[in-house]
Amino acid sequence: MTPIIVNQHGLINELAALATYSDAPSPAVTRIHFTPVELKARDYIRRLMREAGLDLREDAVGNIFGRWKGANPDLPAIATGSHIDAIPNSGRYDGTVGVLGGIEALRALKVSGFVSQRSLEVIMFTAEEPTRFGIGCLGSRALAGSLSPDRLRSLHDSEGCDFDTVRKAAGYTAPLHTVQLTKGFYHAFVELHIEQGAVLEREGRETGVVTAIAAPATLRLTLHGDGGHAGTVLMPQRRDAMAAAAEIILAVEQAARHSTSLDAVATVGLCQVYPGAVNSIPSRVLMEIDIRDIDLASRDMMVSYITMSIAHTCEARSLLYELLTLNADKPCYSGGAIVTGLVEIAQKRGYSYQTMVSRAYHDTLFMSEICPTSMIFVRSQNGYSHRPEEFTASEDIVRGVTVLAEILARLAS
Amino acid sequence: MTPIIVNQHGLINELAALATYSDAPSPAVTRIHFTPVELKARDYIRRLMREAGLDLREDAVGNIFGRWKGANPDLPAIATGSHIDAIPNSGRYDGTVGVLGGIEALRALKVSGFVSQRSLEVIMFTAEEPTRFGIGCLGSRALAGSLSPDRLRSLHDSEGCDFDTVRKAAGYTAPLHTVQLTKGFYHAFVELHIEQGAVLEREGRETGVVTAIAAPATLRLTLHGDGGHAGTVLMPQRRDAMAAAAEIILAVEQAARHSTSLDAVATVGLCQVYPGAVNSIPSRVLMEIDIRDIDLASRDMMVSYITMSIAHTCEARSLLYELLTLNADKPCYSGGAIVTGLVEIAQKRGYSYQTMVSRAYHDTLFMSEICPTSMIFVRSQNGYSHRPEEFTASEDIVRGVTVLAEILARLAS
Repeated sequence: MTPIIVNQHGLINELAALATYSDAPSPAVTRIHFTPVELKARDYIRRLMREAGLDLREDAVGNIFGRWKGANPDLPAIATGSHIDAIPNSGRYDGTVGVLGGIEALRALKVSGFVSQRSLEVIMFTAEEPTRFGIGCLGSRALAGSLSPDRLRSLHDSEGCDFDTVRKAAGYTAPLHTVQLTKGFYHAFVELHIEQGAVLEREGRETGVVTAIAAPATLRLTLHGDGGHAGTVLMPQRRDAMAAAAEIILAVEQAARHSTSLDAVATVGLCQVYPGAVNSIPSRVLMEIDIRDIDLASRDMMVSYITMSIAHTCEARSLLYELLTLNADKPCYSGGAIVTGLVEIAQKRGYSYQTMVSRAYHDTLFMSEICPTSMIFVRSQNGYSHRPEEFTASEDIVRGVTVLAEILARLAS
Repeated sequence: MTPIIVNQHGLINELAALATYSDAPSPAVTRIHFTPVELKARDYIRRLMREAGLDLREDAVGNIFGRWKGANPDLPAIATGSHIDAIPNSGRYDGTVGVLGGIEALRALKVSGFVSQRSLEVIMFTAEEPTRFGIGCLGSRALAGSLSPDRLRSLHDSEGCDFDTVRKAAGYTAPLHTVQLTKGFYHAFVELHIEQGAVLEREGRETGVVTAIAAPATLRLTLHGDGGHAGTVLMPQRRDAMAAAAEIILAVEQAARHSTSLDAVATVGLCQVYPGAVNSIPSRVLMEIDIRDIDLASRDMMVSYITMSIAHTCEARSLLYELLTLNADKPCYSGGAIVTGLVEIAQKRGYSYQTMVSRAYHDTLFMSEICPTSMIFVRSQNGYSHRPEEFTASEDIVRGVTVLAEILARLAS
């Protein structure tokens, strides 16, 4: 076996090519789950997987698996992967580095003459971003059995289209109960991803080895007030859904700012106002609230504070509301042997590294329910992510793919 | 001349027919300026005007004029009219009662054998609602010379389409400078409209005679913060545009609630969040603020308070912002002779009536810049407007059209 050499030029070109499948003008990327542009991007991923000599499989929710059969194909496989969907007006590295980097890791291993005992697999997870159906990591959740066929069928997008109809229209027609994989189906899973924060950059480290992933909770709140003409309904008669929403948005911010945990974050990133006209009192507001902490107790305390604030505001303003917990996941901890392996590889290669916690939410969180996992982080310039300015240097990507290829080889030997 | 008899059955059927030109399911109406459905509704209005024997003229912004030539056509004409565009998810009576009721008033006068000295005109004003281009009464403003061709050309909708391109695509290609009419072009203008408030209902009156229209001001605010991943950017590092927006929305509410004027109202009816994903910190928020009072000084005090609150919030949160005054119109007072005439007609007919101020914003406000004006109000059930539950009883509409026909006949004799 010759040394593992990553094809930097080829990989960066593929990242650029994938970025052209977008509903936003460059450098922004918008690639939402099962939209025409995302379906075209899937074709591109299939083509790269086939050209790399991988055997393709796709499940009923749209996860795509590219397998390189091992010498001992009955052993549980080693997997890597990430996602290619992108929220509106975001960047080109989030997720894609782990999918294209995963394919490149397998190609580099093949070129090096590596003979794998276990099969190796790259997974393109479907809908990691919650943009369309309001729930993140849809594909990996379903695969790990954390999203039942009934729950999947109950999901609707903001246009009112249900998930089952949308996936069938996209060509995924197999029964939903076939998606879940058993515990032990994989021997291990390692995901390469951009950091989406500024810790590595600030600390001057090239590689992050993830030891845990913070626990996110997502709430969907609908406020029901009274509409009416903005000129004619006097203030004491109003039940303005947007004014109530404003109070709640500030309470969400306070929940995190006043938390004793420095890692507490809470965000209202989505807020839709109906009917949405300048001369009309808002009758309804839909918002989604994202609450995270490394510490589960601290996070749940924020959720309680926010829930109480919502009840208080709605009572004081005589509004009705519906509050839905879209998800409230538990943190996950990486497999110790994988973390040790990643640290050894970084040391051997001479890459500066550090172990760290991921405060972002990844498919690995759900893969950890069926096998040991870890993640490799590469630097995000200024910590920017989910915006067009997202940037990771080619050298950092190459280092990440190199570490990935080496850990896959170790785990698969 | 026989008595004026309004065709109740025909007029109510026409209101129902016009309501079917909608992008929202019945009973809701959505009919936005120069959308395909609004263009079809224009065809319907043209047909009714032609069938009523009126001569059609359309100006370069899409105002439609139906004229019944008088015996003395060189005298300035008497006009009535209103609008047919409707904000998202609103009702079927706002504006339409004044357009269809105006056509019916002319038909009833013809049937009665009335011989008009002056010409009589029904105007369908274009884009009374500010939904698409952010400015209300676009058609009447332009007609009265309060919206210059340059300002018209600078208007863009939320998709980035400019007014000039949109109007030309809708078939309105004449030069914009031809729209303005001179002072004295009309001898008088009277608009029939639903009240959009609950004053008449509360007081048990059938007819409202409008003596003044409150002065609205509209601000457009764009807040520029910093985006980023909702999981990874810690609270102290954030410049969240939505949290800043929430503070400002509450300040807008406070401005009106704390005003010494009981008629003060202030509303944030439009609020758009970018990028608008649950796991993304809002980098930008666009909102429009509607501020009204009968008293100009009180209204301008609210505008000052809101402007200062915006500056304060943005300074405290290190946000950049753009604040644009879309309009800040002066109140208008009705023509005394028209008000006297309307009161006499109501008394003679035995309709219970009251003189009142309009706190909503109408095309009459701008028509008052070129001729004496007034308005006739009919009751809105529960004061509801700009929502699907908007309702005015047929008998009230008939009373309104009867008063309108009589005042037109008096003014035109």
